[in-house]
Amino acid sequence: MMRKAILTAAGAAAIALAVAVPGSVRADGPARAPGEIIQAAPAAQWAAIPPEELLVMDLAPGTTGQPRRVVIQLMPAPFSQGWVGNVRKLAAAHWWDGTSINRVQDNYVVQWGDGDAEDAVKAKPLPAGLAKVSEADYVAPLSWAVQPVGSPGNRRDEIYDGTGSLKGGWPIASDGKTAWPVHCYGMVGVGRNMPPDTGSGAELYVVIGHAPRQLDRNIALIGRVIEGIEHLSSLPRGTGEMGFYQTAGERVPIQSMRLGNEVAGLPRYEYLSTGSTSFASYADACANRRDAFFIRPAGGADICNVPVPVRRVKG
Amino acid sequence: MMRKAILTAAGAAAIALAVAVPGSVRADGPARAPGEIIQAAPAAQWAAIPPEELLVMDLAPGTTGQPRRVVIQLMPAPFSQGWVGNVRKLAAAHWWDGTSINRVQDNYVVQWGDGDAEDAVKAKPLPAGLAKVSEADYVAPLSWAVQPVGSPGNRRDEIYDGTGSLKGGWPIASDGKTAWPVHCYGMVGVGRNMPPDTGSGAELYVVIGHAPRQLDRNIALIGRVIEGIEHLSSLPRGTGEMGFYQTAGERVPIQSMRLGNEVAGLPRYEYLSTGSTSFASYADACANRRDAFFIRPAGGADICNVPVPVRRVKG
Repeated sequence: MMRKAILTAAGAAAIALAVAVPGSVRADGPARAPGEIIQAAPAAQWAAIPPEELLVMDLAPGTTGQPRRVVIQLMPAPFSQGWVGNVRKLAAAHWWDGTSINRVQDNYVVQWGDGDAEDAVKAKPLPAGLAKVSEADYVAPLSWAVQPVGSPGNRRDEIYDGTGSLKGGWPIASDGKTAWPVHCYGMVGVGRNMPPDTGSGAELYVVIGHAPRQLDRNIALIGRVIEGIEHLSSLPRGTGEMGFYQTAGERVPIQSMRLGNEVAGLPRYEYLSTGSTSFASYADACANRRDAFFIRPAGGADICNVPVPVRRVKG
Repeated sequence: MMRKAILTAAGAAAIALAVAVPGSVRADGPARAPGEIIQAAPAAQWAAIPPEELLVMDLAPGTTGQPRRVVIQLMPAPFSQGWVGNVRKLAAAHWWDGTSINRVQDNYVVQWGDGDAEDAVKAKPLPAGLAKVSEADYVAPLSWAVQPVGSPGNRRDEIYDGTGSLKGGWPIASDGKTAWPVHCYGMVGVGRNMPPDTGSGAELYVVIGHAPRQLDRNIALIGRVIEGIEHLSSLPRGTGEMGFYQTAGERVPIQSMRLGNEVAGLPRYEYLSTGSTSFASYADACANRRDAFFIRPAGGADICNVPVPVRRVKG
């Protein structure tokens, strides 16, 4: 079945899905692929993602009745905590239940919230007590040692935390004084109006295309999809301006959106610690593929091609 | 309707679709968005894409009977011409008619060809006379003056041709001696087996996620989708290894694939000349968004976020 193995998979899709990469560790022969390094990583190098840091969105079932669940990990301090607090309040109030996916723009974003937000009569009231967050909070002070990803050829402003001062191993950029999360595939952000509006968190989007880095430091990122992004990225594209659905009938209903600790039977998830030796090997392999399929290592990788591996915990 | 304008669109999706960007040129006020610069570009700065450089793939109609046409522009010399020649032969032989989309892997690729290629009995014979292309042809000698995209902050190996020595304005990388096309969103490449196989061109894929730059110089790129990529990127993801569909029933039939000069009534297409003043302004605006939605220009853009604008010619 070699022709089926036409493109090796690992290293491109891990942020979007719980990692399930084919292949096994080789005792000898070519260097390991990123997916093989992930599979071989010892249990101690994986870190739990607590359920209270998860947001679980259930769309209405698909055309064949299949469930469509999307699991989002919320951004840890010091980033975006004003918006994250609002998102927690909105989820606790079950505010998104009955709202919808309203926009799907190819190679850009899927966006959801109240499809009638612009209608003064029909707009769904927001819960009381949401914070108004300042533009200043698009960035955070840089207060930890940075660890560049991989090898020469990477942009120097693209780092992963290697010190444990950030929870969760997130893609972060920095100018040496401040730091901010990066708009990679699968990252979830806060829709907003023109500045100085910064958005409440009720209107969210997820990146489904090439990383739109021009949005960094201009919109708040509050998390990332760790499972089920295919239920969003494969939706029909909207044909209105900017990919909005032109009719209410095209919108995809959101049945519920809950904090993970409110969801019965949720699997446990882990991420590969970005300070671990396995992560270092993985990042190096992403930047320099030496496994059998490849003939020329790239000599570098951009941060969005070194997604932090996330997995479901078995059993 | 301001809340609908939550994310400005231009600069992310242009390679994937004939450009249709909302907005108009401002007489004063904030700087222009990339889409506004494209819309204002004079006719003389657009260059025709001849129909014989196009490949037109018609999928079976969708669930509501809608047509699903994908238009691909073939790669010009000096790149990948052995494979491009094979693709022309395969299209002229109508070889893809009745084949199918067999693989859809989220944030990676959609792949098509003979779903039975691995079955010695059922495999579809290839036409005679296809070239076997050397691995050496993954790169070409660098024989023209390079023009880096945009502003400081761009990777220096990422260039567009500004001299006219390449037709079509393609994303190209270089090490100073050789040059090669880049795996951006929408680029079309040649599936292959393990090295030293280089693929015939009968098995093709298109990038539908963050640019998998590790594939550069390891697989041949033969073109890019200029219209209709949404018919591929929104397909259900395959649930087999590497996103292959697990059953033949899931595959999406390809009705026909033809060279553009064989297709009656095909619209005319143009690209914005990468040597034009409008393209320079557009690339600068992609790297430094100063239009009203933005509060902090990025100071750089990677080449896959500066897609060459392509449009249908009106009338």
